[in-house]
Amino acid sequence: MIKIGIIGAGRIAHVHARSVLNHPDTALTAVMEPNPSSAAAFAQTYGARPADQIEELFDQVDAVIVCSPTSFHPEHILAAARAGRPVLCEKPVAADLAEVDALETALAGLDSTVMIGFNRRFDPSFARIHELTQSGAIGAVEQVTIISRDPAPPPVDYIPTSGGIFKDMTIHDFDMARHFLGDIVSVVAIGQNLDPALAQTGDFDGAVITLVNAEGRTATITNSRHCAAGYDQRLEVFGERGTLNADNVRPTTVRVSNAELTDAQDPYLDFFLTRYEEAYIRELDEFLRALAEGRQPTPTIEDGRRALEIAEAAERSARTGTIVTL
Amino acid sequence: MIKIGIIGAGRIAHVHARSVLNHPDTALTAVMEPNPSSAAAFAQTYGARPADQIEELFDQVDAVIVCSPTSFHPEHILAAARAGRPVLCEKPVAADLAEVDALETALAGLDSTVMIGFNRRFDPSFARIHELTQSGAIGAVEQVTIISRDPAPPPVDYIPTSGGIFKDMTIHDFDMARHFLGDIVSVVAIGQNLDPALAQTGDFDGAVITLVNAEGRTATITNSRHCAAGYDQRLEVFGERGTLNADNVRPTTVRVSNAELTDAQDPYLDFFLTRYEEAYIRELDEFLRALAEGRQPTPTIEDGRRALEIAEAAERSARTGTIVTL
Amino acid sequence: MIKIGIIGAGRIAHVHARSVLNHPDTALTAVMEPNPSSAAAFAQTYGARPADQIEELFDQVDAVIVCSPTSFHPEHILAAARAGRPVLCEKPVAADLAEVDALETALAGLDSTVMIGFNRRFDPSFARIHELTQSGAIGAVEQVTIISRDPAPPPVDYIPTSGGIFKDMTIHDFDMARHFLGDIVSVVAIGQNLDPALAQTGDFDGAVITLVNAEGRTATITNSRHCAAGYDQRLEVFGERGTLNADNVRPTTVRVSNAELTDAQDPYLDFFLTRYEEAYIRELDEFLRALAEGRQPTPTIEDGRRALEIAEAAERSARTGTIVTL
Amino acid sequence: MIKIGIIGAGRIAHVHARSVLNHPDTALTAVMEPNPSSAAAFAQTYGARPADQIEELFDQVDAVIVCSPTSFHPEHILAAARAGRPVLCEKPVAADLAEVDALETALAGLDSTVMIGFNRRFDPSFARIHELTQSGAIGAVEQVTIISRDPAPPPVDYIPTSGGIFKDMTIHDFDMARHFLGDIVSVVAIGQNLDPALAQTGDFDGAVITLVNAEGRTATITNSRHCAAGYDQRLEVFGERGTLNADNVRPTTVRVSNAELTDAQDPYLDFFLTRYEEAYIRELDEFLRALAEGRQPTPTIEDGRRALEIAEAAERSARTGTIVTL
Repeated sequence: MIKIGIIGAGRIAHVHARSVLNHPDTALTAVMEPNPSSAAAFAQTYGARPADQIEELFDQVDAVIVCSPTSFHPEHILAAARAGRPVLCEKPVAADLAEVDALETALAGLDSTVMIGFNRRFDPSFARIHELTQSGAIGAVEQVTIISRDPAPPPVDYIPTSGGIFKDMTIHDFDMARHFLGDIVSVVAIGQNLDPALAQTGDFDGAVITLVNAEGRTATITNSRHCAAGYDQRLEVFGERGTLNADNVRPTTVRVSNAELTDAQDPYLDFFLTRYEEAYIRELDEFLRALAEGRQPTPTIEDGRRALEIAEAAERSARTGTIVTL
Repeated sequence: MIKIGIIGAGRIAHVHARSVLNHPDTALTAVMEPNPSSAAAFAQTYGARPADQIEELFDQVDAVIVCSPTSFHPEHILAAARAGRPVLCEKPVAADLAEVDALETALAGLDSTVMIGFNRRFDPSFARIHELTQSGAIGAVEQVTIISRDPAPPPVDYIPTSGGIFKDMTIHDFDMARHFLGDIVSVVAIGQNLDPALAQTGDFDGAVITLVNAEGRTATITNSRHCAAGYDQRLEVFGERGTLNADNVRPTTVRVSNAELTDAQDPYLDFFLTRYEEAYIRELDEFLRALAEGRQPTPTIEDGRRALEIAEAAERSARTGTIVTL
Repeated sequence: MIKIGIIGAGRIAHVHARSVLNHPDTALTAVMEPNPSSAAAFAQTYGARPADQIEELFDQVDAVIVCSPTSFHPEHILAAARAGRPVLCEKPVAADLAEVDALETALAGLDSTVMIGFNRRFDPSFARIHELTQSGAIGAVEQVTIISRDPAPPPVDYIPTSGGIFKDMTIHDFDMARHFLGDIVSVVAIGQNLDPALAQTGDFDGAVITLVNAEGRTATITNSRHCAAGYDQRLEVFGERGTLNADNVRPTTVRVSNAELTDAQDPYLDFFLTRYEEAYIRELDEFLRALAEGRQPTPTIEDGRRALEIAEAAERSARTGTIVTL
Repeated sequence: MIKIGIIGAGRIAHVHARSVLNHPDTALTAVMEPNPSSAAAFAQTYGARPADQIEELFDQVDAVIVCSPTSFHPEHILAAARAGRPVLCEKPVAADLAEVDALETALAGLDSTVMIGFNRRFDPSFARIHELTQSGAIGAVEQVTIISRDPAPPPVDYIPTSGGIFKDMTIHDFDMARHFLGDIVSVVAIGQNLDPALAQTGDFDGAVITLVNAEGRTATITNSRHCAAGYDQRLEVFGERGTLNADNVRPTTVRVSNAELTDAQDPYLDFFLTRYEEAYIRELDEFLRALAEGRQPTPTIEDGRRALEIAEAAERSARTGTIVTL
């Protein structure tokens, strides 16, 4: 039984707590959360002990899942590394590239194990496309098309603290693009401001981004902060010998036909907690498997850094109207 | 150029006339129709000459398409056969089995060429399933499932003259079942009377029929005189190594997704003239090809007779509540 | 926390054990299983205590799930009822109608709570179709079409002990038919013997069954003991104002297109433990919900009895070549 | 009967000839083609008279379809306009923007009727999406996604004469983008050279282009000169209240399921003559309808000019690695 501690008690901490509870090889032992009532409620729900200090948490666990606010990620990763505890840290690694660089410097020489929670790599459909691609099913990858739209915008207040659409939302898609294309050499982003309610935030509410790798292979990402039909998450990989695609997921396979329409399906699964529930479970599983096999889990901090680098380049491209070279 | 004459000037005669006009190897030369104004209008539309007598028609043509009312089919087929004109005759061959038997007797010894217009054999999707089945793609056929529903019932007045649902509507499905299973040895039919408007006609407005061949392979047919979503025409063939199915046809590939539903498509193509337009063209083509190659076209009169035999057995089964053996 | 005991430790007992463990309101407390090593292994896996006697089990639990062999169902249900323990019993209620009648007689006067585990009623897609049907989305139901094929036949040895295809396999479909049509008044079944390997068992390896209710509404069931493409489980409900259907379920939404084919999907989810995993969870939930609300859960023993009655009628119909009236 | 003359006798001239022959209101009267044997063959196939001089052609016809090589388009359009003959001219209007400007100048003051053959506007599915969009079905358009891939590259010799991928292939997609977004203000294109066989031509063999209109609404176009699964032609329009998409077209609705895969469909309809057959018919119909109603048909020469302007901007963007403002 691997004893797991969770840092943070927010929405995503609950997702991880459930995965830990349901996993046959893990126990949720401790939680650290500055808000005492949240900490107590979380601890009680999952039968974990609340820890006041991070060392107190480390003492009770074999591994840590970091679900604190982004600004604390480097500090918590570093503390765990120093305590010799493997870490699964929520994305993004840090708020900006400079902080990641500082973290990587601080980690140098430590024998740390850090995995970044880019959950989409573990979505059953996207993972299957990756596996088929790796096995040569469609030959070399030429063009990746990612559609990624949220069902509805976050509260307007949240946006200024979000880091902007590219770091907050597209960061997942940047990681997916790298998952299929490897390192990216140029980035061009078009930002949109189509939603009047979000206009005053200064952030974009939609974006189209094209990434190119050193061989000229491309990924196109289309984002929106809203989508009437639900959480729109699709992936298509076009290769020299075929195409693989993954559609949205519905709660059932039911189709309705009547005098107005035929084969209508239900709206897509609602937002990321539901849509990627299975992905979070498989992500935890990969983390545990890597620990058991004594290897580094992926995605790594460096994967997190590269995605963040693309996000900053995309922001620059959208703001300046130029193509940015990495 | 093969000169074609059409007997009849109703709805189905127009369908054949258009196929003839568009076929590169045929010319529509003559039409015979008792109603003078229909005959004149038809003749003018397609540039054909109206014939008063059937011999006058035969004199002007190389082959004949019989689109007269069912009760005249045997007489017109026989006349054409005696005149040495190949015939493509609309289904059914005749109003009942006794008439077909009489026709077959009368044709015996004549060197006739008669094809019965079971158009569904020529539908591109159904034909492709047949071809795949014949090529062994799914191994031996085990269970055929046919869904066949009209968009809306015919006028109540028509029903008493229709010969009943099994001869009027299911006859096509009986032929499809034979196309995949060969001869049928037992028939069980459940008739339905669910539509109050049709209740007084004495005919069924829905039916479920199971056919079995000598090897125990089955075909299940589900019919209804109405279907809210349109003309519902599907076929599924289940074999020992796989399944083939053909969905309904829509006018476009457009799918609509919004806050209520996702991937909704248009209603199915409206009724048989549109749905089977391509099938009528290919049916004519098979007829011409057989003439050119000096072989008998199929489906034959005997195919028409067998389908009618099943229709009569189905009626008997539904009326008596028993399984009927052929 | 509701303490649950399981009787039996076979494959289906494991399915229920996992549902109990994952349900927030239940604890798996005890297991009774005659084979000591199976009992011990089961007990250890789920942290339950093995009970030697059924009374010992009842003493430790609030409710019981019966997963014993069919021949023990009546005995175990009755014992639980006498001990005042609510029961969720796997289908079928008993091996034949006479035994169910005896059980119902024995239960008369006892204040028992018994639910029969017809899991398909709880499949998210089938349940959604039922809900839409109940809400009037398609008007009155006219024709139900059920396709139900196993991926591969059971071991030949199993078949003689199975009760025959209708009680073993179609029983689920009979319950689904009743779920949509209510009581059935006539049954006609065609049995098939197409698989040479199963020929000597005396049981059918495929079947087509038509059920009719008092209003003439029908359900058509197509069964096979094998299906190359996997576990083929589909439902279509045709009503006066529309059609609802539920397709098979695949592990991902991935589609492959290449030079040979387009949009090919993965094989269907493998067999019932995977395909109906969610259904078993929801079934348990309905059982608990009924207990909490102090009402009888459904499906009831009487539902189990009616399905068995249809199964026996289907066997008789297939053996005698007649339509059987209930 | 409107008498139509065709200039040119190549592949696309045959497509238009068939549309004219099949249209109830038109007759194909004359053809002009410099190669005498092509001219004779074409004339004989369609029963048209070959004309040696353009004036000879104009004398025999009410309207003209220009299917000559691109470099002759301006000359032939101008000649027809001067002769008072309405023109349907194949895309593109001319080889470059300067020539279109010269043509527009020359046409100024003439009472000409010129329609440019951007066939995709008339594809039943794309047209339906446009109609739904115009009717407000999805609110304001926000992001258009066009996938457009040829099944296989043209002969290597053709490429240097093609004008480059953007003018030759993407020009259709540029027009579609304008059809949904109106005028475009900025263009960024990434060109690809992934096919070694095409590398020495100097042209791109794939491209990703993003177009933005004055309101910040975008169109993303993904092109490739090859696609294993066939002619890949899809359109998706995302609006504030919903999404509309059009899938590829297959010859049948047949789906194959077996032990390896489920629901596999046939490859897409082969290349543009088949895929857009119906679109050419509807395009001709719009041309004739505009003539009958005395209005200008669309797309106009100015539409052709704007698409060409985008093509030139895309080429510049791809060559220089910058975003180009129009």
